[in-house]
Amino acid sequence: MRAPDAGARRAAAERLAGLATPSGALGRLGETAVWVAACQGAVPPRPVERVRLTIFAGDHGVARHGVSAYPPEVTGAMVAVFESGRAGVSALAAAHDVHVRVVDVAVDSPAAGPWKVRRGSGAIHLEDALSPAETARALAVGEAVAREEIAAGADLMVSGDMGIGNTTPAAALVAAGLGLPATEVVGRGTGVDDAGLARKLEVLETALRRAGDRVADPVKTLTALGSADLAASTAYVLTAARAGVPVLLDGLMAVACALTADRIEPGVAAWCAAGHRSTEPAQSLALDKMGLEPLLDLGLRLGEGSGAVAAVPLVRSAVALLRDVALLAEVLPGESGA
Amino acid sequence: MRAPDAGARRAAAERLAGLATPSGALGRLGETAVWVAACQGAVPPRPVERVRLTIFAGDHGVARHGVSAYPPEVTGAMVAVFESGRAGVSALAAAHDVHVRVVDVAVDSPAAGPWKVRRGSGAIHLEDALSPAETARALAVGEAVAREEIAAGADLMVSGDMGIGNTTPAAALVAAGLGLPATEVVGRGTGVDDAGLARKLEVLETALRRAGDRVADPVKTLTALGSADLAASTAYVLTAARAGVPVLLDGLMAVACALTADRIEPGVAAWCAAGHRSTEPAQSLALDKMGLEPLLDLGLRLGEGSGAVAAVPLVRSAVALLRDVALLAEVLPGESGA
Repeated sequence: MRAPDAGARRAAAERLAGLATPSGALGRLGETAVWVAACQGAVPPRPVERVRLTIFAGDHGVARHGVSAYPPEVTGAMVAVFESGRAGVSALAAAHDVHVRVVDVAVDSPAAGPWKVRRGSGAIHLEDALSPAETARALAVGEAVAREEIAAGADLMVSGDMGIGNTTPAAALVAAGLGLPATEVVGRGTGVDDAGLARKLEVLETALRRAGDRVADPVKTLTALGSADLAASTAYVLTAARAGVPVLLDGLMAVACALTADRIEPGVAAWCAAGHRSTEPAQSLALDKMGLEPLLDLGLRLGEGSGAVAAVPLVRSAVALLRDVALLAEVLPGESGA
Repeated sequence: MRAPDAGARRAAAERLAGLATPSGALGRLGETAVWVAACQGAVPPRPVERVRLTIFAGDHGVARHGVSAYPPEVTGAMVAVFESGRAGVSALAAAHDVHVRVVDVAVDSPAAGPWKVRRGSGAIHLEDALSPAETARALAVGEAVAREEIAAGADLMVSGDMGIGNTTPAAALVAAGLGLPATEVVGRGTGVDDAGLARKLEVLETALRRAGDRVADPVKTLTALGSADLAASTAYVLTAARAGVPVLLDGLMAVACALTADRIEPGVAAWCAAGHRSTEPAQSLALDKMGLEPLLDLGLRLGEGSGAVAAVPLVRSAVALLRDVALLAEVLPGESGA
């Protein structure tokens, strides 16, 4: 995996230091601008105009085992809401000119589609999420979708996930990736009660035990503990990073997939920034491992990529600052040595 | 002071609870949307299109007494940079379609202008910042400027301050407003060193002692411890609140002025939201008193209203969510009781 451009990073940091602002005054926005410049290999960075979000949708067998506050039928209903442009993320995307695409990878519905790998994924405490062949197909879906988004000119890519029960396999991916027990990664998702949280912990513990040594391999981890939508999302981030397109991560699902992509091909994390801190502990643990710190912490628990879309204007703010603020040498020519 | 519309607040909270999203999933953006609706008296709230920032510029006598990392000449230079549209806040404002206006209230330069109250303000540890008549004129400037911005159709108003040394009088306003000693409100501003910080503390202690009982009165506090630009900014926020136009606060200066305005006429705080957490301790203390929690915490130390401008897209995100997301009753008509 190629790293972001070190020369551009240095030049961007120099430009940042030379702006007519007090040293360090741009805070996290300054760091974000330097990251964009390094990803683009351009100083100043180009505007981040074309932001493209793909929401991977799929059901999860665990959702029928009491780990979620919502019934699995909501997954398909929400796909229809995305398609009508009236979901939470739709409103945010429209407000900030972000393109949204919904890909049905594994919704448990009779709806066919060019990207459908299967109906739902296995209940990971009882069986593998996918067969190895299905994992390969889901990875191919994520790669193909990412290639289309890149071909459409994406300056920045975002992934979202829709699927009732998805925080359970996502937490399992983080536990596998970081070698942590279920107790450290389990969270309440969209709002499960205490009894549900206890069931979720039990499902996670059983699933991790069932997966055994396979957790050491990221692709086998997706087969045993993931799902078709999470595998597709993993390949989507991996493909963006390979193509040198920066990725803005949302919550637990996006971050679990980025972590898994970074395990498949170390170096993915350098192409990622974090949009929003999740209330799920597994997201913060995975971000720490990747050295990422979210731009926002607004208590959003909507999923769908929404926290990342809400953070898109901050990436644009960062780029605008590094592009458009006067240099000290222009404002005070005497200081420039000229 | 009229309060934001309680009926609209209730109706907005009901609409928020009725959206086709998990309960509480919109986090701080949900709360922000309800606040905008209450300020507008409209559910759903209207889009926040016309955002208008006024930067009040003025010098401070204390700047010649070692309390700042920068010389006072920078104030006038920065006014020119704002006017050329190449300051930090200019870049952010252009990126987010925020109108910027710079008002020279008391820059220590021969430049005249319709709003100029005096050249600089007094060094508050040695003398009053202003005469009572100058305070009255500065308050009138802030009110007149605010009325013009409101007449221009402002949906949301933001204040910024430019003036080397301004964190010293602003911290003094907070100390006076909250009855705190100088040790609790002093901070490093744009980056003063340890010796500078010690001088700043001494200046603040001397100034508060010198002001005496006058700190109990907010207008006398502006005269003794403030400055012409801070007095104008105080009246600007007060006038916006009286007119029912919501205000998005930036860092220490904006918050110190909002606190002072709320002392002049209790109830101003209800018309305010906080954009960005400052590294200055006095800002957090004043926000706590006003019951406000910033949307952003990105380590910006730029001043100029920049943290609030960076947060403007979040206010727009909030409004978009409450306006445009489907209601559960529309998505699942069976649940509506219809």
